[in-house]
Amino acid sequence: MTNTQDDFWCVIPAGGAGTRLWPLSRSGAPKFLHDLMGTGRTLIQSTVDRLEPLAGDHLLVVTGRRHVEAVAEQVPQVARGRLLAEPSPRDSMAAIGWAAAVVEQQDPDAIIGSFAADHVIGEEARFRELVEQAVAVAREGYVVTLGIEPTYPATGFGYIREGDALGVEGAPDAHAVVEFVEKPDLPTAEKYLATGEYRWNAGMFVVKAKVLLDLLATWHPELTAGLRRIAADPSRLDEEWDSLERIAIDHAVAEPAAAAGRVAVVRCDVPWDDIGDFHSLAGLLATASAVDDARADGGSTSDAGTGDTALHTVGTADVVSVDSTGIVASRTGRLVSVIGMDDVVVVDTPDALLVTTRGRAQHVKGVVDTLKASGRTDLT
Amino acid sequence: MTNTQDDFWCVIPAGGAGTRLWPLSRSGAPKFLHDLMGTGRTLIQSTVDRLEPLAGDHLLVVTGRRHVEAVAEQVPQVARGRLLAEPSPRDSMAAIGWAAAVVEQQDPDAIIGSFAADHVIGEEARFRELVEQAVAVAREGYVVTLGIEPTYPATGFGYIREGDALGVEGAPDAHAVVEFVEKPDLPTAEKYLATGEYRWNAGMFVVKAKVLLDLLATWHPELTAGLRRIAADPSRLDEEWDSLERIAIDHAVAEPAAAAGRVAVVRCDVPWDDIGDFHSLAGLLATASAVDDARADGGSTSDAGTGDTALHTVGTADVVSVDSTGIVASRTGRLVSVIGMDDVVVVDTPDALLVTTRGRAQHVKGVVDTLKASGRTDLT
Repeated sequence: MTNTQDDFWCVIPAGGAGTRLWPLSRSGAPKFLHDLMGTGRTLIQSTVDRLEPLAGDHLLVVTGRRHVEAVAEQVPQVARGRLLAEPSPRDSMAAIGWAAAVVEQQDPDAIIGSFAADHVIGEEARFRELVEQAVAVAREGYVVTLGIEPTYPATGFGYIREGDALGVEGAPDAHAVVEFVEKPDLPTAEKYLATGEYRWNAGMFVVKAKVLLDLLATWHPELTAGLRRIAADPSRLDEEWDSLERIAIDHAVAEPAAAAGRVAVVRCDVPWDDIGDFHSLAGLLATASAVDDARADGGSTSDAGTGDTALHTVGTADVVSVDSTGIVASRTGRLVSVIGMDDVVVVDTPDALLVTTRGRAQHVKGVVDTLKASGRTDLT
Repeated sequence: MTNTQDDFWCVIPAGGAGTRLWPLSRSGAPKFLHDLMGTGRTLIQSTVDRLEPLAGDHLLVVTGRRHVEAVAEQVPQVARGRLLAEPSPRDSMAAIGWAAAVVEQQDPDAIIGSFAADHVIGEEARFRELVEQAVAVAREGYVVTLGIEPTYPATGFGYIREGDALGVEGAPDAHAVVEFVEKPDLPTAEKYLATGEYRWNAGMFVVKAKVLLDLLATWHPELTAGLRRIAADPSRLDEEWDSLERIAIDHAVAEPAAAAGRVAVVRCDVPWDDIGDFHSLAGLLATASAVDDARADGGSTSDAGTGDTALHTVGTADVVSVDSTGIVASRTGRLVSVIGMDDVVVVDTPDALLVTTRGRAQHVKGVVDTLKASGRTDLT
């Protein structure tokens, strides 16, 4: 484990309820606190594991007050003073901007990299190499994003349109960003892929703390001033927080900065997923299992993830299955028997059971909305 | 409630694990102890309710020793001395024959009617009228069975081939029986239905106790003698029971008696089901719900049971469903959410969960066999 860049800080925003992963993910125990991949590490633990070789103890986690205890327990290596507890959710700009202001206080020239607590990333050594490229570009004053090479015409992510190569030393994969575009419909996504110019926007940003805040001050001066006041005097947190503007970092900084020619993208060719729903989780588990099988065989993994001919489990599910594919997640220890189900999703928790298919995984959110609307928030 | 026939006794064999209804039905709590139809009465309670108007307190239940307490609690109107507790399962001839011998001891001319504890029967007034016809025929010395009018070419039941009308007074629906045939394959079942001569064998027999035992003595003298010795001296039960021949009443008496021209059938045109599996249960619940709807509308029920466009529940299942059909049975009180599942079967119990489809309902037994084979009998 090496930390060659003392001025580099990792910021891990740990938010989002992961509603489409209900009833595993709950508002009281969101996605990032779960070991969804069956690796023995929760998503936030894996995120910290992935970043520690880059950042050492320069790790900041921004999370909701109600999750601070759980986060502290799961990632004890993140110093208590570096767990920033949001009094309430105020979207990604406030979360990341607060961390940037805290870092700026300590080291005005420091660079921050912001990486969500609940994404899955493969080929971690290569990933860290790409982050180091991003750091090199950030040193030049850019806002740098890592743009994921799209593997299919996804309609669930925003896209980044890249321009010419930047030619920054130590960053051969860095290009200028022409624009950020919103989640497209399918024909548009297909067009994007055909051009070869588009990357998925995974919300990963690397930038000097001061550059981020100064850019933000151009378009959102009050928000910036509030964040800097909190960083200078933490006792002002409660007083300031609720009046901070609610806005996503993409709209607040990335899009206008791209229009101003201030954004770069590093082409990120490693496997990435935000585990948006059970369809996505099942696909990841299928890939992971294919990789394991290929390793066991000493063979190639190039076909991994295309088929899903098995029933995968999350957690210590005790499963007896016949002719079934899909995913069983259990938190109860009960026997789960599945017979003749294709692409099924079974999620078994002490107070709620979900049965659906991978194809309907997007509709889980609707059930959570129904429960909330009927006042059954104990289950959400 | 009238009991016009003081010499008529009802015998209710309460056995069978109902393995294809696992994990609702267990060896320790078989099908007949459950309120599968959501009527507020368990199957054995409904059976007793149906027969009391015919038999008054002339009711005998034959069940396994481990179920005696549960049966006594569920049907307290069956006198304690009329709960016959089998030391071990020895098939239907021993169970019904024991009850016949007990009745014969009390009244040598009495007639018994044997009706399983776990069947569902509709149009109960008509059913009782048909049983009274069967009693009239039994008085003439016949072994009388109630043959169910088949509604589809079932391959899961044996069939009864009927001959000429018998012309017994008070029994216009009674015919001679030509033969009993085993469960057919589908083409054979279709042929049976086309002839109009075949009825389903539902295992319902009405016969003088002495006639049954005397016929049995012709082909199985030792079994008959053992049963009569137990009835004469109940203290001999444990000593005699385990050496009784294991044989079904169909093979032991019904088939040979039919060949000897001693069996009659009363055409039974009421709805009947043995709830063999979750497919069958789901169909029954769909029919019951269609009947309820039609009643609420004051309309006809003639279409009942053909469609299944709803998700039906067994027990106090707390269900949130979207675009789903089939059945949810819950014993846990948890929220069960089902999204986009056709003809699904979800059975939620404290220690085991089953997810399958109506089409695969027959394969549930295989899972139970797997569990038994791996020594997990706590779950079966």
